[in-house]
Amino acid sequence: MEIKRKGSLLSFRPDIKVLDATLRDGGLCNNFAFSDDFAKALYKMNIAAGVDYMEMGYKASKAMFDPAKFGKYKFCDEADLQKIVGDHKSGMKLSVMADVGRTDFKKDIGDKKNSVVDMVRVACYITEIPAAIEMLEYCAKKGYETAVNVMAVSKARDEEIDAALEMLGQSPADCIYLVDSYGSLYPEQVAKLTLKYLEAGEKYKKSIGVHAHNNQQLAFGNTIEAASWGASMLDATVNGMGRGAGNCSMELLLGFLKNPKYHLPPVLRFITDYMLPLRQQGVVWGYDIPYLLTGRLNMHPSSAIACVREGNTDYEMFHRALLEKD
Amino acid sequence: MEIKRKGSLLSFRPDIKVLDATLRDGGLCNNFAFSDDFAKALYKMNIAAGVDYMEMGYKASKAMFDPAKFGKYKFCDEADLQKIVGDHKSGMKLSVMADVGRTDFKKDIGDKKNSVVDMVRVACYITEIPAAIEMLEYCAKKGYETAVNVMAVSKARDEEIDAALEMLGQSPADCIYLVDSYGSLYPEQVAKLTLKYLEAGEKYKKSIGVHAHNNQQLAFGNTIEAASWGASMLDATVNGMGRGAGNCSMELLLGFLKNPKYHLPPVLRFITDYMLPLRQQGVVWGYDIPYLLTGRLNMHPSSAIACVREGNTDYEMFHRALLEKD
Repeated sequence: MEIKRKGSLLSFRPDIKVLDATLRDGGLCNNFAFSDDFAKALYKMNIAAGVDYMEMGYKASKAMFDPAKFGKYKFCDEADLQKIVGDHKSGMKLSVMADVGRTDFKKDIGDKKNSVVDMVRVACYITEIPAAIEMLEYCAKKGYETAVNVMAVSKARDEEIDAALEMLGQSPADCIYLVDSYGSLYPEQVAKLTLKYLEAGEKYKKSIGVHAHNNQQLAFGNTIEAASWGASMLDATVNGMGRGAGNCSMELLLGFLKNPKYHLPPVLRFITDYMLPLRQQGVVWGYDIPYLLTGRLNMHPSSAIACVREGNTDYEMFHRALLEKD
Repeated sequence: MEIKRKGSLLSFRPDIKVLDATLRDGGLCNNFAFSDDFAKALYKMNIAAGVDYMEMGYKASKAMFDPAKFGKYKFCDEADLQKIVGDHKSGMKLSVMADVGRTDFKKDIGDKKNSVVDMVRVACYITEIPAAIEMLEYCAKKGYETAVNVMAVSKARDEEIDAALEMLGQSPADCIYLVDSYGSLYPEQVAKLTLKYLEAGEKYKKSIGVHAHNNQQLAFGNTIEAASWGASMLDATVNGMGRGAGNCSMELLLGFLKNPKYHLPPVLRFITDYMLPLRQQGVVWGYDIPYLLTGRLNMHPSSAIACVREGNTDYEMFHRALLEKD
């Protein structure tokens, strides 16, 4: 395969789409307890900023998760979404995420014609691809655009990824995402994986997306690295709000992209008016030493999240304990 | 020129050297008011971590800067350094930085044989190369290893950089640094510039270094990008402490490098014991929206530093004001 980056720094690629995942990945920081005012302002801001997709949250099973314990963006009931987006007459598309094994999709995902949702993103681990394909087929039949986020590929072997891409290539998914769940990938690895995903994408006519985490302060760098090789669906969250170390920051991404349809000032205004207050209320996310340590060891961030939550700053001991688990 | 990265992710490059610039670039955050305890612990930590060079601070002119207003690391008097490092019998080398136009180098830099300092790094803007060369020649004659940091090259035209590299190639400098003073460069630009610097470096037998800033959360990403093409002197600071958005974090860099001589745990311990207390005392550095904005506009961070210091969080207005200045 010829190794050639796509586009240059001053040009723009009309194929690139930006997805705002603030309510969804950011919701993991505050149990999805966003006010209506926050969600409505975010919706308006995304439209003003030229964002292509806004993810409203998860379609989580109410049998598995108690609605009394989570905000509505954990479930994304149609009526709740419509309360935020009204009749949703804008060029921006809406997405929801559904996790394999944590959703009653046949019960909770209805026909597209009755929904403001445009795209369903199915999230799965690499061992769950057949279950993901069942969901992708179901959602496509219901009329939705679909994407699949194969999580934690940094843990998978090359042959597993190859097999997964072959299977997903034959699925109805419109987009296959490269997901660095643990924030462990370096740009060189992202480049190689992106090229692998793009090969499958070209064969099966799928776009390739990227969803990065900031454990090693590489979420933005890895996102533009993937984009430079041809990934076209780029996930970001405002101020990087997302689980643990968070995600690629929307303000960095829109500050970088050259397409004149994107506008940075609405994002800046939203950070001042909504994200700083969230932080002041005690919602915590972003780069911190424990996340770096799980990231570089290619481990799930759960122990780092607990370490930060407990205010444990004995990083050397935390590191030693991780090495014993690794 | 053949485009080929040097080394791979699992190998290590024995030519790579890590320089800790915490006292020097970090000193810009607290007017160099580090305690002796801090500096001694940092010195011991760097040795334990396998760091190759530790920069002790600046050799600033006492005629231009009032010693009553700055900590001793602004001036690096020999007696003060010896108080910290004792007889300095370790494999680690010490460096000091001298800014063109802000140093009385003929008065303040004596013979190497009477100093614990191993290397003098001369910092200059691209218009000051002849003055830098005069200093490099002076310091080399005094017996020091020398390096030159050409600042703010993101503002320079290609032909200026080419001319600068030719002139510096013929100077005694052992190392020429690619410096992203404004934190404005993206990895693709860093790659291109690194290759340009390396071309001069190969012609004139100089090593190439990289000094990055974190305005766009790219300091670490850009550092390893430059290293992947062949830059071998890598600047970092503990916890990224440095002017404005700060630098490449030592913990990220040592977490990445594969050479078994580098050790992460001493850095983690130092962060807990010394860097967190600094932050608690109110010393501020690290990624923040105003730095992103000057970085992406390729501007000096001074207005962003003022914005953060004033607690001005009206980022949209700050951005608008920058655009008017740009």
